[in-house]
Amino acid sequence: MAVIILAAGQGTRMKSGLHKVLHTIAGRPMLMHLLATVEALGVERKVVVVGAGREQVEAAVAGHGVDIVVQAPQLGTGHAVAQAHDALAGFAGDVLILYGDVPLVRAETMRAMIERLNMGDAPRSVVLGFRPDDAAAYGRIIADAQGLIGKMVEFKDACAEERAVTLCNSGLMAVRATDLFILLDQINNDNAAGEYYLPDIVMLPGSQSAVIETDADEVAGVNSRIELAAVEARWQARRRDEAMREGATLIAPETVFFAHDTVLGRDVVVEPHVVFGPGVVIEDGVTIHSFSHLEGAVVHMGAQIGPYARLRPGADIGKKARVGNFVEIKKASLGEGAKANHLSYIGDASVGAGANIGAGTITCNYDGFLKYKTEIGAGAFIGSNSALVAPVKIGDGAIIGAGSVVTQDVAADALALVRAPQQEKPGWAARFRQIMTARKATKS
Amino acid sequence: MAVIILAAGQGTRMKSGLHKVLHTIAGRPMLMHLLATVEALGVERKVVVVGAGREQVEAAVAGHGVDIVVQAPQLGTGHAVAQAHDALAGFAGDVLILYGDVPLVRAETMRAMIERLNMGDAPRSVVLGFRPDDAAAYGRIIADAQGLIGKMVEFKDACAEERAVTLCNSGLMAVRATDLFILLDQINNDNAAGEYYLPDIVMLPGSQSAVIETDADEVAGVNSRIELAAVEARWQARRRDEAMREGATLIAPETVFFAHDTVLGRDVVVEPHVVFGPGVVIEDGVTIHSFSHLEGAVVHMGAQIGPYARLRPGADIGKKARVGNFVEIKKASLGEGAKANHLSYIGDASVGAGANIGAGTITCNYDGFLKYKTEIGAGAFIGSNSALVAPVKIGDGAIIGAGSVVTQDVAADALALVRAPQQEKPGWAARFRQIMTARKATKS
Amino acid sequence: MAVIILAAGQGTRMKSGLHKVLHTIAGRPMLMHLLATVEALGVERKVVVVGAGREQVEAAVAGHGVDIVVQAPQLGTGHAVAQAHDALAGFAGDVLILYGDVPLVRAETMRAMIERLNMGDAPRSVVLGFRPDDAAAYGRIIADAQGLIGKMVEFKDACAEERAVTLCNSGLMAVRATDLFILLDQINNDNAAGEYYLPDIVMLPGSQSAVIETDADEVAGVNSRIELAAVEARWQARRRDEAMREGATLIAPETVFFAHDTVLGRDVVVEPHVVFGPGVVIEDGVTIHSFSHLEGAVVHMGAQIGPYARLRPGADIGKKARVGNFVEIKKASLGEGAKANHLSYIGDASVGAGANIGAGTITCNYDGFLKYKTEIGAGAFIGSNSALVAPVKIGDGAIIGAGSVVTQDVAADALALVRAPQQEKPGWAARFRQIMTARKATKS
Repeated sequence: MAVIILAAGQGTRMKSGLHKVLHTIAGRPMLMHLLATVEALGVERKVVVVGAGREQVEAAVAGHGVDIVVQAPQLGTGHAVAQAHDALAGFAGDVLILYGDVPLVRAETMRAMIERLNMGDAPRSVVLGFRPDDAAAYGRIIADAQGLIGKMVEFKDACAEERAVTLCNSGLMAVRATDLFILLDQINNDNAAGEYYLPDIVMLPGSQSAVIETDADEVAGVNSRIELAAVEARWQARRRDEAMREGATLIAPETVFFAHDTVLGRDVVVEPHVVFGPGVVIEDGVTIHSFSHLEGAVVHMGAQIGPYARLRPGADIGKKARVGNFVEIKKASLGEGAKANHLSYIGDASVGAGANIGAGTITCNYDGFLKYKTEIGAGAFIGSNSALVAPVKIGDGAIIGAGSVVTQDVAADALALVRAPQQEKPGWAARFRQIMTARKATKS
Repeated sequence: MAVIILAAGQGTRMKSGLHKVLHTIAGRPMLMHLLATVEALGVERKVVVVGAGREQVEAAVAGHGVDIVVQAPQLGTGHAVAQAHDALAGFAGDVLILYGDVPLVRAETMRAMIERLNMGDAPRSVVLGFRPDDAAAYGRIIADAQGLIGKMVEFKDACAEERAVTLCNSGLMAVRATDLFILLDQINNDNAAGEYYLPDIVMLPGSQSAVIETDADEVAGVNSRIELAAVEARWQARRRDEAMREGATLIAPETVFFAHDTVLGRDVVVEPHVVFGPGVVIEDGVTIHSFSHLEGAVVHMGAQIGPYARLRPGADIGKKARVGNFVEIKKASLGEGAKANHLSYIGDASVGAGANIGAGTITCNYDGFLKYKTEIGAGAFIGSNSALVAPVKIGDGAIIGAGSVVTQDVAADALALVRAPQQEKPGWAARFRQIMTARKATKS
Repeated sequence: MAVIILAAGQGTRMKSGLHKVLHTIAGRPMLMHLLATVEALGVERKVVVVGAGREQVEAAVAGHGVDIVVQAPQLGTGHAVAQAHDALAGFAGDVLILYGDVPLVRAETMRAMIERLNMGDAPRSVVLGFRPDDAAAYGRIIADAQGLIGKMVEFKDACAEERAVTLCNSGLMAVRATDLFILLDQINNDNAAGEYYLPDIVMLPGSQSAVIETDADEVAGVNSRIELAAVEARWQARRRDEAMREGATLIAPETVFFAHDTVLGRDVVVEPHVVFGPGVVIEDGVTIHSFSHLEGAVVHMGAQIGPYARLRPGADIGKKARVGNFVEIKKASLGEGAKANHLSYIGDASVGAGANIGAGTITCNYDGFLKYKTEIGAGAFIGSNSALVAPVKIGDGAIIGAGSVVTQDVAADALALVRAPQQEKPGWAARFRQIMTARKATKS
């Protein structure tokens, strides 16, 4: 099986410097959604047809074994598919034709298209049809009960009777590689736009094509940022329902945003206003409080996150550990039951089980050039407002006095203090207020 | 008056280790919503019938004077109600039968059911009916204009004419205690499921039952987390409208989440994205800026909260006081006009009127074992990035120099400083950069 | 051209101490929305008719060249308009009559009303009509195909045939100043309420009035906070679509709130849950991460903001600069490529290009009386948890050691340190734990 993904459209309505198919849904470029789906199907050959912006697309698909071919000039969808000819040289299987801006087509639907292509009646091609709420200007498909296509007609060429048909053409097709390029050779550009239209292969003389149907939702396309937001909303709604069905409580599902790969355990509670970036795994019994933002993080059983917790890539939060408000964790692990409850930055660090990170603690992991590691032992207690200047190790059970700047390792069970003596100047504040009040009075 | 709350369902579709009726709406378990309502009605006897998970339910209702009875095995709703027999021994009043997963029934509706039961025509029982948007598979109620029930029929047993009836059975009933158990003794389990159905008491020979109607919204049940979220959304929508009608401005009501007991004054402004946990009282003229999270807190007249303020239980914010961004207040009072505007943690503390808490101030209230109190006098000025190590008192009008770690009490009107002298190493940074740049170059 | 804005309604349903027309939409009082629109049209004379609350309105419109007249007692809309008589003395142009609680009327609509008034058939007045989803109790307009009004009738006086008409009266009118007050003299208060109704001028004998139509959305009025929220929602929805059409990506548009004057460049990405207060300009290629709050700030090309960034008035964020989580910037500029990534407060400051502000840095800009400035040079590196006590200058390329409280200027390329020596007390923590554990055991 091979796939040709058309991505040559200019995407003018996106008003963007970024190639249209690289705009994201659920934190992943639309094109990568399609690639992930076809890779799960075990597709052997992948061809992406681009127009402008080849470099951007190339960079995005690097490592995915994709052939990129350029369509220039752009003479229609039939012409675009024809550009894949050389890339598929020697390939004799089935070919799926997809669109880079129609990102949410399911693997089952793709598989069903291929299966239909290989049924006994051996249709020449399989078209994916759908029934939109408003069929508007879509091309119509006239088919019999077996899905064999009698006619496929552009809306503008359709008569009233044909326009009354609700089955529309999504543009997605499956064709045998051995047929595809022969068929494309036979279509012409005798139309107003002077373009070669892919659907024209359906009406060529010879054997019949077949249609299979899917939900309109699945073939929603993205031509503008408003449509991008609409497809994102649809994706999120689907994912939220799935999360709830699998045993997570979303108190206000409409305020929670998932990434394409978020994994949630059972009896996870997600409060209102939470955002998941890519790469998050949440185990059973975790509560994510409001206003938390997670990305590239693993949260183990029974941990409490937030409110206002930011977990960045490499955060690994142990069982029943707690990450509280205004706390950022990056490339750092918290052991079982460890706590970082307030106003802290823990980066490039390991924190032992049961350790307590006081409010305002900062790991100073960066000197402007390199990053260094902080190791905090099990059961250690870091006093509030401390700065731990990495590389540094705080031993198991050690205590750091509040406000310390720790630059040397601290032994297990020791107390470390970095602190000047407290001085008091009696009456100074009263005199200062007198002076300042007088000065302000003079000014005004 | 007595109430029997059925809570024996397995709640399998919740996929949860938590008993279904303990899942929360507006921060309160569903079962507790019902108990609060019936307690407001002055119900004398409360029986909850559980299946599995007795301990969880028992712990939740502790102190509410509830009898918990276990239904095992579970042989239908009629059988479930019959389990309350012993718990209601000697009780001769009216009995309301409610469902632990139908949490939002109003007191007025319950009262109306009891009143109907006691009208002159003395119906045998009162059924609560509703008219859902989609009557689907609900049991139908055939009643006359006076609400006397001619027939009550399960959907599957209903003929086409009966299915066309839009009045459906919510399951809630009111019955005299002296009748209830006698009626239950007369129903049988001659049905496909082999269960004893509570509604069957309606069609027993003898006097008639009556139906009263209520909104479909009120009897929405929760069998899955998706339904839980839907009931939560309905509750929130109702509460937001109520808040606005009573004189609060919600700029984006759909992004504000209330708890079951939130109290809001007049001319309170709530910006987008605010979450109220239980126990919050907001007085007149307060503004709650975006991204604030409040729980167990009292905010007095004209105070300004947030954005990004977190008020935790025991926070008491004085008149015209201000709590700013990335500030957490826990078990602490701020006097009139006091300010804590930036990046602070104020816990177990009292802050006097007009005091100014500098950015980055931390009260160090915990030593890993116990919590201690910080007292800050009226008009005191706490310099930025200070740590106040409790127990400690800062006198009225005292000033604390920036970056101090204060461990001893400071007298009123004094200046306290804890600071090492500033040292400068000329050119050091330039040399460091040279070395590090060279090292990086070597590495790469 | 002149405008009379009626703002005399009591606004009782708002339950507010704030005058109804001063409640805000998109961060701007409703009345100011109207003034901004008419000012853009070049209106010469502006009269606002108020009832109670004159002072509040006066303060709000100060500097806008508005005449405020008081209507007392309040005898209807006709009477209200008549109060503008003296203020418009000597004015002979066209007069638009608007409502302070109908804030979203567009300039084009106003212009169309004036143009219609000045067409060849010279109608006596122009009424703005609309077709609501539910015409309910609105006054009906019976007009011919040219928009000439045959009859205008209050709902309660309308016959069934008239009620079936869907064209309703918004109340907005355009009339020549030379006609207006003469017409108002001719209407009477022979009605149930004993009031003088402005629409009655339409049906006076003499020349005909004309109607032009607009969207129901545009003439939505605000009589309660629920309606205020509904108008806000409509405004936000319109603005979000506009932002997307102009080339910004809003991942979850429904969670992003704009102010009336927000300016967004192309390829700006706004993540879920972002709030814009007034006065924000975002240049091309900027990403605003979730949970950010911006107000009075300029963000230059390619900068990264948030998550959890708070930009306050006077924040100026340079090209490719970064403001990270839990960072507040006020009246401060960040040079190109400068970074303040974590838990900082930067106020009254300038930060040079490429400077790095460590986590937990605070500029101490306030001594309780005055504000002072912090200047940080290009390429400087401020170690974490530092406090910079303004006024203070950190030279280009200087490094500040972590946890320093800097009170004196630091030379370019120097290292500055303010730090006590680290002390360690071996075994102290173990002994402390022993004592505290014993104490806790004794207590319980």
